Order: sequence, then structure tokens, then C-alpha cells
Amino acid sequence: MKFSIEKAVLVKAVSQAQSVVERRNTIPILANVLIEATPDGVSFRATDLDTEVVDKAAAMVERPGATTVSAALLNEIARKLPDGALVNIAADAATNRLTVQAGRSNFSLATLPREDFPVMASTEYAANFAAKAPVLRRLFDKSRFAISTEETRYYLNGVYMHVADTEGGKALRCVATDGHRLARVDASLPEGAADMPGVIVPRKTVAELKKLLDDDDAEIAVSVGETKVRFATPTITLTSKVIDGTFPDYTRVIPKGNARKLEVDAADFARAVDRVATVSSERSRAVKLALDEDRLILSVNAPDAGAADEELAVGYADEPLEIGFNAKYLQEIAAQIDRENAVFLFNGAGDAALIREGGDESAVYVVMPMRV
Amino acid sequence: MKFSIEKAVLVKAVSQAQSVVERRNTIPILANVLIEATPDGVSFRATDLDTEVVDKAAAMVERPGATTVSAALLNEIARKLPDGALVNIAADAATNRLTVQAGRSNFSLATLPREDFPVMASTEYAANFAAKAPVLRRLFDKSRFAISTEETRYYLNGVYMHVADTEGGKALRCVATDGHRLARVDASLPEGAADMPGVIVPRKTVAELKKLLDDDDAEIAVSVGETKVRFATPTITLTSKVIDGTFPDYTRVIPKGNARKLEVDAADFARAVDRVATVSSERSRAVKLALDEDRLILSVNAPDAGAADEELAVGYADEPLEIGFNAKYLQEIAAQIDRENAVFLFNGAGDAALIREGGDESAVYVVMPMRV
Repeated sequence: MKFSIEKAVLVKAVSQAQSVVERRNTIPILANVLIEATPDGVSFRATDLDTEVVDKAAAMVERPGATTVSAALLNEIARKLPDGALVNIAADAATNRLTVQAGRSNFSLATLPREDFPVMASTEYAANFAAKAPVLRRLFDKSRFAISTEETRYYLNGVYMHVADTEGGKALRCVATDGHRLARVDASLPEGAADMPGVIVPRKTVAELKKLLDDDDAEIAVSVGETKVRFATPTITLTSKVIDGTFPDYTRVIPKGNARKLEVDAADFARAVDRVATVSSERSRAVKLALDEDRLILSVNAPDAGAADEELAVGYADEPLEIGFNAKYLQEIAAQIDRENAVFLFNGAGDAALIREGGDESAVYVVMPMRV
Repeated sequence: MKFSIEKAVLVKAVSQAQSVVERRNTIPILANVLIEATPDGVSFRATDLDTEVVDKAAAMVERPGATTVSAALLNEIARKLPDGALVNIAADAATNRLTVQAGRSNFSLATLPREDFPVMASTEYAANFAAKAPVLRRLFDKSRFAISTEETRYYLNGVYMHVADTEGGKALRCVATDGHRLARVDASLPEGAADMPGVIVPRKTVAELKKLLDDDDAEIAVSVGETKVRFATPTITLTSKVIDGTFPDYTRVIPKGNARKLEVDAADFARAVDRVATVSSERSRAVKLALDEDRLILSVNAPDAGAADEELAVGYADEPLEIGFNAKYLQEIAAQIDRENAVFLFNGAGDAALIREGGDESAVYVVMPMRV
């Protein structure tokens, strides 16, 4: 194997691949990236056995071939090379080393045989469709904050992507919840997605996917099967196992009869919550919302440290209400609101609240109250 | 106590004070800042019993007085208040709370009595002098990297500031070493400093001092006694105990007969060292320097990961030499070189090397070799 590649191209491809590699590996080859050079170009493949990423990069290939080398090391070397350098990479079969040369720098890196690298088995996908990057970005960005980190509830450790029936017809829907709060985000159903099975996309894959969605004009090819999901741009393919579990019936959690309506500037609200929460001890960051006619008083009372309150002018025309929430949950939901106004719908002090962006029903959030 | 203060002024004063406060305190009041309001303004005082900082700030004082409140909490609240806000602060004697009010935000914070706050005893200083901020900055910035972190060698856990005899007369000198490398930086002796006792300024004080030296035009009042040192701008006073120990006789460590001279671009050198060191295992980051006529080859050999080398065009006209160093030490010293050229003076492969900036003798560095 022998090829030349521009430094910037190498950095981009290797850093994307390297981010899938787990820091600590008991299986040495999982720390490596598989480099495959063909007459068409070079690909960099990395895996943690659950997620696999393949980056294709333009290169001048002199001699096709393949080998594996430490992903972290290759990534660090690539970053440190002078900008604009042309990097010559070659596998030396006699010494089992990979040589990397640029300018007056020479590196000779230990390799492991390509045959030992676990390439993810290919699958039949039940549905294949295309979606614009901003559509997928919205679906996952607005839901991922609610993913559970509790390992015992493994079926909540991801975003549930599925086809849902809505008033406006079928939709592509992403839902995440940790039992305390929930996010439900809809997009119009792409052509070819109707037969898609519902899948739970793991947290790590959601994080990796974010990097594929930078370019607003990119079309992402999505493939969904019972056990795997794949997202692909023309140069990067991200394949992931899905979580083998059943996502709970979230529809029962979303309150329907909440009639008390609060309208508030989302940014002002988030900043005020942040300020009053300062005094609360870190464990129970409970904020009390006291609602009266067009007035919201946020308050926190922490016996040790002190107390704080702040008044906000809001839209509220219903019965007075006092209700408590975890400050962090309120802030994270407020951060998802793209429009000026967040709309809260309350029932009683012991009932879940529903939050949406103005009148838009395509993204709704639910948060459970706390006793204050 | 009651006063009003601008948000930006409050943030600056409290954040400076708060940085002296240790995160974990067994004595609760050490987590607090002492606020003292007098008709002239307000001061914020914090201490860890070894270091004390007092920040004076302009404020409209309505009622003088004093109390103490959590430094971390006041700092966080101040930062989160809206920009441009006028902050009203008052001590409520009846409830023992401090109220902080700005706009529609109200905070009520737990206090501890001012009488319990340990104010550092005043001392007679043997010498008082003034120095420009950039002069002190250079002395401490160029030496602090070599401070030892070994607690057993407590007398090396700071910068030794003292008066030294040099060829050009007496100088104000800062020295730091950890036994593996040493930095020695001189400045011309300020008026009034001649009788100053040599003091070891602790690492934490050196870090805090950096914040006083931002303003190039500032004149810093320095007071030095046998047990304490004080640095003061018109608004901030930093007082610190000095390390109670004897700094070793560093002059014996500085090689005098080194005759083999290498001249190299400091930035190119640092980058090349960084690149070749990539392959070395983290523990023993040994880099080999092979010198021959106007040529330097840097190389690293790490049996597990691989090998790297890089060639640099340098100025060298002496006998060929091979010598090894810790890569981190070389990089840290190269980072101190402000001029283009670093000058290395070597003796043998087992002897310490001396590094300086061009022909300037006012800052010299020593680094011990490593077997490679």
C-alpha cells in the first residue's frame, strides 16, 4: 500500500474515524483504524463493534493495499504536521510498519494485520430513504438532551426513531426520555420511510451522527433495519447497531387535558431560572414557579445557602398556580426553543407540564414536577 | 451595611478574591469573602490562611459595615446578573442574611460573622520597592514552569526571588527548579530592593500574582519580609506567606564550561520536538538530538508504537554529539524563548545543557540529559 494525501484531508478523515474508537480497549485492534487504499481513493474505517464509521478520502494511490494502525497516534501525527503538507503513507510488508512522511518528518508506526480487523457484517435494511441534513439535525438535536444515562434502563439510552401517526398524516418522529422529562420531535415523512421499523439509536451514534450533519445542503442516505441503522453522506458512512429493547409507550406520558397556559420569552425564562437556581444545593435543584395574572415568580429556597426569587412579566390568564421543577430540566428544555415564545401548558401542581414552541406542535416537551 | 455597585465592578472584584479560596475547606469561613463597606468604597477579602487578597472597588456606600458570605456563590450570582445592572447589596442584621438585588432578581444569602474571619496579621517588611508590571511578569512567567510539584521537596515548590550579583552589578533574580530543569531570570534591581531577603514565593501566589500584572502600565508595589511577601496595585493587594525553607545553591547546577554551541529557530525546534514525541509512550518521553555540521536530527524510538525522526537545518560547527532529553522539558523551555533563535550550549552526552535566548544572558535555562 502506498499513497499521498493532503494534510487537511487526512486530518478530517482520521479525526472522524478516531472519534468512534473507545479510549480503553481490551481488544488491541479496536484501537486501530483500518486504512484501505484502492485505485479510487483511500478509506479509513474504525469501530467499537457497535458503531462503525468509514471515511472515504481523495488520495493519489500508487499501490493499493490495506493495513491497520493506532487511530489515536495517526490522528495526533496528522494534526501536528505542517499545514499544506503532502503526506506520503506506505505500508512496509517486510517490517510490518506503516511509514508516514511529510517534509523532513518521518514516522514508522506499528501495525496489526488487516485480517484481524472486525468489519461489521452487512445487513438487509427494511427501508432506505434520503433526508436533508437540517431535518435530521433538528430531529436528533432537539431530542438528545432527554436521553437517559441510567444503564439499567438501557432501552432509554437512545433516541427512538420511528414512523408516527399525527393529525397531519404520517411523520418521521424522534422521542427520548429519562422518565423525568421527554422530548418528541416530528418531521414530514421522507419518501421510502413508511415501512421503516422503529429503532432506538444509541446515544453514542447520535453524537457521531451530529458530525455528519454540519453541511446544510447535504442529503443524508438513511437505511433502517431491525438491528442496524446507517447514515451516509457521499464520503462518510456511519453504521450502528440499534438498542435491542422495546421503547416504552411514551404517548401515555404526554398530557392532553392541560388547560392552564403560560407564554414566556424562552431566553429570559432560561436566564432567570439559571439565576435563581444559583443558591440551590447541587442535588435537588428545585425551582418554584408561582403563576398569577400575567406574572410569574420563580423562587428557590435552600436552607443552608439562602434564597432567591425573580419576577417575570408573562402571558397567563388562568387560575393561580404554584408548581416546582428541576432547574436543569427547565433550562435544557428552554434551550431547545428556537422561537421567542415558549408555551407551557399546566394542569395541577402534581401533574406533568407540556412545553412547546409557540403554536408549533411538531416539537413538544414534557417535564414532571417536583414537590417544593 | 448597604451599598450599590456596578455589575462589572462587582464581578471583577469578587472573581479575583474568589480564586484564592480553596474549593474544599474544613473551616467553613474560609469559603467566604469578607465584604467591608466604608465611606470610601467597598473591599472584598479572601484567604486560605497562606495567601490573602483584598480587592477595593468603587461603590455608593449608604451604610458602612461588614459581613462574610460564600465567595463562590456571590461570584456565580454576580456573573449571572444582566450586564449593566446596578447591584444593591445590604446586610440584614435581624436575619443574618445578605440581600443582593438587581432588576427583578432578589437573593438572600447566609452569612458568617465578620469577627470570625481570619485577617492576616500585618508584618514589618524589610524592603519596599516598585516595579513595572511587565518586569515582574517576565521574571515569574519565564521561571514558573520549572517549579517542582513534589511535595516532599517543599522548598522547590515556588520561585526563589532574591538579589543576585551579576557581571553587570546587582540584579533582581527569580529562580525555579525541580531538579531536572532550572530557569534563572534577571531584571535590573529596582530602587529600594537591595536589602531584600531572598524569599521562596509559593506556586499558588505566583499564579494569583499573574492576574495583577495584566496592565502593562501598572506600577506594582512590592514588599518583602522574612516570612511574607506583598504585591499591590492601587486596587488589589496580594499578601502571601513565603515558603519556610532554604532554596538550594542553584549556581553549582548551571554549567559554565559548555562549549558546543547550537543555534536553532525556537518555534521550529518546539514543533519538531512535539511531532517526533508523538510516538513515544507517555512516561518516558525521551527525544534524541543528533548533531552534526549544521544539521540536527531529532528522533524517538518507542518499541511498541513505532519510531519518528525529523531533520532541522541549524547552526552547529562543533564535534558531532548525540544527547537525549525529556521532550516536555525541551518544549517548555523552547516556549520561553521570545527571540527567534534559541542557543544551546552542550558539553558531553551525560552533562546538563544550558539554553539561552540568542546572546541574552538575563534568562538562562538548564536541562539535565536522559539516557537514550
